[in-house]
Amino acid sequence: MSDKVLVVGSGGIGSLYGALLHKAGWQVDMVARSDHTIIKHQGVMIDSILGDLSFKPDNIYSNIAAAGVADWLMVAIKILPNTDLATLLAPAIGANTKICLIANGLDIEIPIAEAFPTNTLKSCVAFVGATRIKGGHIKHNSFGNMVISNYLQENDEHCQKFADALNTTGINVQVCADINIERWKKSIWNASFNPLSVVTNGADTGKMLATAESEALVRCLMAEVIATARAEGYELIDDLIDKNIATTRKMPAYLTSMAQDYLHGNDIELEALVGSVVSYANQHKVAIPHLNTLYQTLKLRY
Amino acid sequence: MSDKVLVVGSGGIGSLYGALLHKAGWQVDMVARSDHTIIKHQGVMIDSILGDLSFKPDNIYSNIAAAGVADWLMVAIKILPNTDLATLLAPAIGANTKICLIANGLDIEIPIAEAFPTNTLKSCVAFVGATRIKGGHIKHNSFGNMVISNYLQENDEHCQKFADALNTTGINVQVCADINIERWKKSIWNASFNPLSVVTNGADTGKMLATAESEALVRCLMAEVIATARAEGYELIDDLIDKNIATTRKMPAYLTSMAQDYLHGNDIELEALVGSVVSYANQHKVAIPHLNTLYQTLKLRY
Repeated sequence: MSDKVLVVGSGGIGSLYGALLHKAGWQVDMVARSDHTIIKHQGVMIDSILGDLSFKPDNIYSNIAAAGVADWLMVAIKILPNTDLATLLAPAIGANTKICLIANGLDIEIPIAEAFPTNTLKSCVAFVGATRIKGGHIKHNSFGNMVISNYLQENDEHCQKFADALNTTGINVQVCADINIERWKKSIWNASFNPLSVVTNGADTGKMLATAESEALVRCLMAEVIATARAEGYELIDDLIDKNIATTRKMPAYLTSMAQDYLHGNDIELEALVGSVVSYANQHKVAIPHLNTLYQTLKLRY
Repeated sequence: MSDKVLVVGSGGIGSLYGALLHKAGWQVDMVARSDHTIIKHQGVMIDSILGDLSFKPDNIYSNIAAAGVADWLMVAIKILPNTDLATLLAPAIGANTKICLIANGLDIEIPIAEAFPTNTLKSCVAFVGATRIKGGHIKHNSFGNMVISNYLQENDEHCQKFADALNTTGINVQVCADINIERWKKSIWNASFNPLSVVTNGADTGKMLATAESEALVRCLMAEVIATARAEGYELIDDLIDKNIATTRKMPAYLTSMAQDYLHGNDIELEALVGSVVSYANQHKVAIPHLNTLYQTLKLRY
């Protein structure tokens, strides 16, 4: 019997990793709210750097209750303060459901871990550029690698099984010891490029690195994230700034997920991606003038 | 023979001070580009805290060349990097023309002073909230006081004459010794509220001071302007922050001139109001992380 995953969320992340698990031979069901009808009729089109990954989910549901209890539950939706994730996911979670959360931000696991303490919660950080062009149509622009670990629990064989499946598809997925340091590492990119792309009303990564002055600003933002991580006990090294800048320069110019949300008039993941860092900085009295300027600016907008 | 002024610019500032000089008995001619026709037909409507100041200019011109050489020339137009102010004003400037520049920003006098070194250039800083609602229709919301001095020259009797005329109209105009310190003082407000109102896509003063965090950001911006002024030799005191915040709280919630320009799709006075401060800060190696974040953000937009 093949493994069976219910993917919640039909954005870039949910669609792409759903497609990859489908390619790995898993049964892939999807919950898609607004994209439900189009995906039911034509499947998910995925124009990927790995080739054409278009696929038809085994089952497509318009809501989680209709899907019933899942074996694997892959949660790939936006993390917003007003989303009651625990209530939303409850219908799909049984005693043996393996929950797998793929999203950006710090401490985003807490509401799920608290609501379902006896389930294992696999926390994933994805290094990927994937954009929902329109309903049921995804463009996978760059990367795809991922790290995974059980949240606040020892890793189990399921972590490795999940990684092994995805590793057959052309990406690299590693089981790691501490997902939090990975979340902090990812925050170096997320908490800098994402808010800057929104306060500029949609500058892409190319534009944000176009001048020495704008690159210097990005570097200041990154340095503030690193200083905050260190105060919280995660010994990130300064080299990560050079590395993030270099990697970003190698990518095609990319509109961040937060800028995409902003330009589509959707809510942005401000608290998960930026507010969480600001909160740790305030707690440890780390000076983050650049980051705080962007954060307060965006708070004033909403 | 009454004094005669040619007002260049039919925005809030040019229209209001033109109206006040008209009230003081001066002959007031105006140059208005896009508002030329409407003002020719109906005059300038000014709904002012001082009462109805609506008036009909003695002459209205669509361009400066048509107006010919002026006795007094009041320049009240936006200061943009691509505006060749010297060439624009040349047709109105004769040997005895008294040029009077009313605008915000630092060092905005330089192009005019360099182009017309034998004319006296009166540099004015106005403390006023006046908005062009539409062509030929101005709302004067708050204040109106002004300071004036000759730029890089001893003050002469004309400075006092100009002040005396306006002082009959209900505002307070003072001849001052050093306009630069006044420009720096004004920059405390201008270089903080203006760019913040634009990066927030149009927050008014009430919104920008609505929370402790947003007020703290405004105070950080103001402190950076003061630190830069001090490095440049202008001993502004920290109390000016409290004073600016208190004065702004007393005003009705106000959309800054830069936000108005932004929301109307017009160019913003970024260099005159913010870039000039950033440039002095860089020159003196003053740390201005908050201000620079806003400045770089706005540069990335244009």
